[in-house]
Amino acid sequence: MTDRPVTELPLHIAVLAYPDVDELDLFGAYAVLSKAGLLARPGQVVTWIAAPRETVTGSGGAVVTAHRDLASVAEARAVVIPGGRGAAAAASDQRIGQALRDADASGARLYSVCSGALLVAGAGLAAGRRLAIHAGKTEQLRELGVEPAPGGIVREGRLCSVGGDRRPSVKSVDIAFALLDDFLPALGEPVMARTEIEPGRRAGLPVSAGEQGGARR
Amino acid sequence: MTDRPVTELPLHIAVLAYPDVDELDLFGAYAVLSKAGLLARPGQVVTWIAAPRETVTGSGGAVVTAHRDLASVAEARAVVIPGGRGAAAAASDQRIGQALRDADASGARLYSVCSGALLVAGAGLAAGRRLAIHAGKTEQLRELGVEPAPGGIVREGRLCSVGGDRRPSVKSVDIAFALLDDFLPALGEPVMARTEIEPGRRAGLPVSAGEQGGARR
Repeated sequence: MTDRPVTELPLHIAVLAYPDVDELDLFGAYAVLSKAGLLARPGQVVTWIAAPRETVTGSGGAVVTAHRDLASVAEARAVVIPGGRGAAAAASDQRIGQALRDADASGARLYSVCSGALLVAGAGLAAGRRLAIHAGKTEQLRELGVEPAPGGIVREGRLCSVGGDRRPSVKSVDIAFALLDDFLPALGEPVMARTEIEPGRRAGLPVSAGEQGGARR
Repeated sequence: MTDRPVTELPLHIAVLAYPDVDELDLFGAYAVLSKAGLLARPGQVVTWIAAPRETVTGSGGAVVTAHRDLASVAEARAVVIPGGRGAAAAASDQRIGQALRDADASGARLYSVCSGALLVAGAGLAAGRRLAIHAGKTEQLRELGVEPAPGGIVREGRLCSVGGDRRPSVKSVDIAFALLDDFLPALGEPVMARTEIEPGRRAGLPVSAGEQGGARR
């Protein structure tokens, strides 16, 4: 990485939850980011789960407890938006759309996983940009007016998305390391060592021509 | 895989939770196995989170809600035992040890992730056998009288463990696919396609000489 991280500490990260959110999309990112918080100095990295209700049930039946409500999303400098069977419904939830627009308006970076791209598109935040999404969800994304990108980690300005390719690595884990690369690259290696993980989709590697350089910031 | 799956349907799977359980170890396995349940016929694959209390807080601060209590572990044909910062304490929790022994006594297969091996060892279920564990936890395993195995997915009879190697793939996801390979190999491919995952540590591949063949059953 030749880019310098874009922000100073502390780093506040919201991971969005909603009914029928995918547990692996949510907790893959949450686990990596909360581990970064444990390895950083106290209060440097704070990650919380934000949801429209106190608890929501995930795609696989896990009960997900929110730490904070949707209003908290606007206070985050980075927002992770997981996919899940409820993504299409959440994409048309006006409260969620407003929360994402408020975060974007305050300069946050948004990181979508798989069908989480539908929420970014539904909030009207991806006009003229491409998002990566699960190979089976590209038509749903087009219906929201956004062009699907080739698979992998795709960056378009302050939007980062992952999906559409089948790898040994887990999309939500990889995008969490991409987020750390953006904000706190020095924390990536200690978290990888502690979790015995080598991200399969490396942040900063070009996905397709012309997509990385200028769009990085 | 030339082995036939070892059981008939339905397949009941308990994923253990305890205070300071690692969220990625727990939900990586839970998400894959619950996805298998969605793709199987109703009731064929049932996965639940079992814990000593109604809720426990994970290593990273997520509140994990149990679907069932520890007594339910004895009803499972497969038990996933995640790691986490609370693994050593859980390994000396007599109620958890008893739950694992009850499951073992009824013929269940046990699948430990990372420091989850400490719970298997603490329950006295790994005497004379080797378990894979995080590279930084090998001494803790020896103190419980169990020899650490080389990294990867390691099988010893009805015990399966993963840990000790750094890969792009996530240990808990890989061991969940190993579990499906053991019981319902036909479900592996549909779950991989749906989740866009190719397990990095393939089930059934030899980890070290002499470990697989006879120990498979």
